[in-house]
Amino acid sequence: MSEKVIVKFLPDDNEIEVKKGTSIMEAAISAGVYIDSICGGRGRCGKCRILVEKGSPRSEPTDILKKGDLDKGYLLACETFVEDDTQIMVPEESRLGLHQILKSSDIEVVAELNPLVRKEYVELDPPTLEDNISDLSRLERGLEEKEICDTCVSLPLLKNFSKVLRKEDWKVTLTFADAGGVSTVVDIESGNTTDDLHGIAVDIGTTTVVVELVDLLTGEVLDCEADYNKQVMFGEDVLTRILYATEEEDGLPNLKKAIVGTINYLIGILAKRNGLRRRDIHFMTAAGNTTMTHLFLGLDPAQIRVDPYIPVANNIPFVRARETGIKINGHGYVYCLPGRSSYVGGDITADILSTGMHKKDELALLIDVGTNGEVVLGNKDWMVSASCSAGPAFEGGEVDFGIRATTGAIERVTLTPDLDVKYQTIGNTKPKGICGSGLIDLLAELFMHGAMNKAGQLEPNGSKRIRDGEEGKEFVFVWAKDTKIDKDMVVTEVDIKNIMRTKAAVFAACSLLLKSMDRKFDELERLYVAGGFGNYLDVRKSVYLGLLPDVHTDIYKFIGNGAVAGSRLVLLDSSKLDEAKEIVRKMTYIELSVNPMFYNEFTSALFFPHTDLDLFPSAKELVL
Amino acid sequence: MSEKVIVKFLPDDNEIEVKKGTSIMEAAISAGVYIDSICGGRGRCGKCRILVEKGSPRSEPTDILKKGDLDKGYLLACETFVEDDTQIMVPEESRLGLHQILKSSDIEVVAELNPLVRKEYVELDPPTLEDNISDLSRLERGLEEKEICDTCVSLPLLKNFSKVLRKEDWKVTLTFADAGGVSTVVDIESGNTTDDLHGIAVDIGTTTVVVELVDLLTGEVLDCEADYNKQVMFGEDVLTRILYATEEEDGLPNLKKAIVGTINYLIGILAKRNGLRRRDIHFMTAAGNTTMTHLFLGLDPAQIRVDPYIPVANNIPFVRARETGIKINGHGYVYCLPGRSSYVGGDITADILSTGMHKKDELALLIDVGTNGEVVLGNKDWMVSASCSAGPAFEGGEVDFGIRATTGAIERVTLTPDLDVKYQTIGNTKPKGICGSGLIDLLAELFMHGAMNKAGQLEPNGSKRIRDGEEGKEFVFVWAKDTKIDKDMVVTEVDIKNIMRTKAAVFAACSLLLKSMDRKFDELERLYVAGGFGNYLDVRKSVYLGLLPDVHTDIYKFIGNGAVAGSRLVLLDSSKLDEAKEIVRKMTYIELSVNPMFYNEFTSALFFPHTDLDLFPSAKELVL
Repeated sequence: MSEKVIVKFLPDDNEIEVKKGTSIMEAAISAGVYIDSICGGRGRCGKCRILVEKGSPRSEPTDILKKGDLDKGYLLACETFVEDDTQIMVPEESRLGLHQILKSSDIEVVAELNPLVRKEYVELDPPTLEDNISDLSRLERGLEEKEICDTCVSLPLLKNFSKVLRKEDWKVTLTFADAGGVSTVVDIESGNTTDDLHGIAVDIGTTTVVVELVDLLTGEVLDCEADYNKQVMFGEDVLTRILYATEEEDGLPNLKKAIVGTINYLIGILAKRNGLRRRDIHFMTAAGNTTMTHLFLGLDPAQIRVDPYIPVANNIPFVRARETGIKINGHGYVYCLPGRSSYVGGDITADILSTGMHKKDELALLIDVGTNGEVVLGNKDWMVSASCSAGPAFEGGEVDFGIRATTGAIERVTLTPDLDVKYQTIGNTKPKGICGSGLIDLLAELFMHGAMNKAGQLEPNGSKRIRDGEEGKEFVFVWAKDTKIDKDMVVTEVDIKNIMRTKAAVFAACSLLLKSMDRKFDELERLYVAGGFGNYLDVRKSVYLGLLPDVHTDIYKFIGNGAVAGSRLVLLDSSKLDEAKEIVRKMTYIELSVNPMFYNEFTSALFFPHTDLDLFPSAKELVL
Repeated sequence: MSEKVIVKFLPDDNEIEVKKGTSIMEAAISAGVYIDSICGGRGRCGKCRILVEKGSPRSEPTDILKKGDLDKGYLLACETFVEDDTQIMVPEESRLGLHQILKSSDIEVVAELNPLVRKEYVELDPPTLEDNISDLSRLERGLEEKEICDTCVSLPLLKNFSKVLRKEDWKVTLTFADAGGVSTVVDIESGNTTDDLHGIAVDIGTTTVVVELVDLLTGEVLDCEADYNKQVMFGEDVLTRILYATEEEDGLPNLKKAIVGTINYLIGILAKRNGLRRRDIHFMTAAGNTTMTHLFLGLDPAQIRVDPYIPVANNIPFVRARETGIKINGHGYVYCLPGRSSYVGGDITADILSTGMHKKDELALLIDVGTNGEVVLGNKDWMVSASCSAGPAFEGGEVDFGIRATTGAIERVTLTPDLDVKYQTIGNTKPKGICGSGLIDLLAELFMHGAMNKAGQLEPNGSKRIRDGEEGKEFVFVWAKDTKIDKDMVVTEVDIKNIMRTKAAVFAACSLLLKSMDRKFDELERLYVAGGFGNYLDVRKSVYLGLLPDVHTDIYKFIGNGAVAGSRLVLLDSSKLDEAKEIVRKMTYIELSVNPMFYNEFTSALFFPHTDLDLFPSAKELVL
């Protein structure tokens, strides 16, 4: 017998009935209210701050909240449990808003359309007493006349078969899907429907999901939608989600439901907007990191997290849509691009596919900084890859006023010589916080103006913006009156250290890959930057901070969302599927976490831009 | 708002709550009370007689019930609808009891075991940081070392894969199934389970279902169970069930559920009795007529019934058990033997397989008389087949006191010269009615003793057993006092005409097949009689009546239940699968219903034994 209470969320004005003792976070998830969380409801990140307006919930003591916040009545949604009817205000900074999402890339286009699905129209002879073979044999005979042999129609398609054949006088259209080299019938429709052939390409990002509706007859992207991966409510990074999947009851099903729900929601929007029924879509390709792929398919991710970091599978078999929960034609297929290892997944394979670096002579380096950081070095003959725990510093985590690239996030910063701040926010609203590209800008500008030294310490130079805070020195980049959150926005020396660790990890990974192949940065002929973060990055400033290598800006190429682009390439051209498999077959993976060289590379990079200034000639003047 | 009432059935003492207005028949189906029905609840067969003991149900007027029965208060369960709480007595003759079921046949045994499922035990190297390929790749590598390549593990098996591999220290057993030439993984278990391999062979009869549990390592039939096909409550013959499937709401799902439920029930008994879990069984083969196969798989049977009699499919694809509802290991497969046409189904293919006639030089005729009648003529070079509507006369229908071969059915009859009757009942109980073999005996004896002429008319010879009844002359074969139903049991001239039509149809089909191939009966080198009916048949008496051809009794071979035997052969030896497909490919089907010769053959056979006595030399003396 558990008593029920009502929880109301403001400003959305959503209500939900839950059991007494439910956490505010769980109630919010059930009510469809998005509250930010990075730690997955473990009381560690302090992002899910809420205010109680009515009711007397019980709250666990926490040392994450600062005294000032406690005084204002802030509580953590994950550590507060309802006891009676409760009204909650979700403050601006705890809300997940719309954010900038890199939707697609136009790096590589398909030369020749050879999609994973195709249609065949056949006209059959009606049966007679003299020609009374079964409906299925009749179809097979009709197809053999068109030299399509060994057609296998599965049982579910036979259920309505007899009526479909007769509805338009024995004229039917078959849809075939290429499911790993085996051509399989996925639909049988009355009449001629060959002028209509659609597929879905998906990027299953840890934070964001992007879905494209693709016309498979023209290769055109008809429409695109994106949204948060609903899993963000269960934790920001893959490790937190793996913990949730393995340690919470129904953890894995909940995570699977969240991502499948996100994709279905987006497909629904696209279908409706383009006048299609879900059943008219017969194939979906998806690229995600290895953990996302596991969670999407309901595979146990437990071993990804623990030494020696083993996924269940990197080459995922083709799966009927109905077995995945994806609401397209249930007989159709879903294919997840293959990954190389637990931390170099199908999204990186997609990146590579979309750059075409696996087919070129030139030596290329690919950097994908998302919630995680992956780097790939190579050309048509060889490839090496590595993954580093970039940490959430560029995605709103580990930085006091850091937020994701959502509406109200500062994405561009310049400083005047006397450290006055000019900034630009996403959506041109008052700022709620600062996102990754804004942080790079801010730190580079502080560095360029001598207000921050190479060790990441702030240098008081008389500006009132540099002051002593609770955690040492801090720089005020927006005064409270100009913000949406009524607080001075600061970057602290602790924040700066966190950002430094992130950039050091990415750079060290690049450096180590080159050294392992006995190459130098100046031998690079092409440098691809992928991922949502990459597209808004100021290369020059990134180089000043030592995040990106100091090579000629001409060789930089931003590929945008390579994951969705790679997915789409496979959808449109089945030969890309073989290329994808070949990429993971030939690519070497270097496990950095146990590589003794990596620690040296990492510590050498724990300066702005680096201990070895010869690596960063452009930045030399800033330091000396 | 529909009111609920309680219906109680005696003597079983089962109660059920149903909506007011529900028919007694529907209530009985819901309550799990078996009431006999041949017409499928259409008020036509008069088999579902019941007595109302309490309550005031509304009953539709019927002319099926005789005045005597109406006077005694009998009503039809299908035409009587409850209005209030009701108590029903199901009289003895309306109850379906245990009956004689031909369980298996030992005609052909498998020379070499090559079952459709096999197991492989593998020991894998545990992963390390240096050898950190995915679980799936590790398994594939382990299998390749055993020269098992291109293994495809489907998504559902990957869900628990990671734990299964680790549970017994990377020692696992894989179960492979041959699903139409493609070897597919259907199970992955921790440890070594190779000493345990089981399959299920099924005969899906229109009336009766037989299930065998087979040890696939030895080829032995470990156990066997049989029961009514629960579909009998929806009608006796295939045409009635097709009507039910196509015209009633949820007709097809109900029929599918009934047969799947029957098979699952029997598998459950077998598994329990033999200490197996359902998940230890990985393959089921089934043979049924084309309608049964359609209903079992949920395929629309509508076109089977109407000119030009087209099934959805004769060659049914392999289906995962979970897609059929069959409760064995869900990843395992179910395979239904292929049929030739709408009226020569997989059961006949199984018969042929079990006789081996498709591999022999000798000219053979196969006769399978069940609820339907099928005949096949041929040898290793050619085969022709036909089907005739045998009608239910031998299965309890169209004959006043006819019942199925259940407990209490008279199965053997002899008459003394003064027409005294000696009989034997199934279960040695007082008789409830007479089944097919008993009717053959009875009519042959009457014929032999001159009490019935070649036209099927009874010849009064002073015996008080021959008397005038409501439908003309009748012969009393058991007096009321000796029966379980307190009525004189009679065979009427109308009954005799019905039996004559049935035997004429079967014989005409045989005759026509021979003529179509320009052969004569005396050229037959082997005559196989299959089906439950066949095994209890007295050949000599059947010849006297003109049911079976008058050939040397040495060439007769009763094969019993060829359907389950053929199923088992395929299960044990995958090469039999190819033989089965080859049989249906090479066998010609002759549609008798539109064959002008058939009507002549049929009318010529509408005498005992036949108009052409030269065909029945043994019977000549009886007629002359």
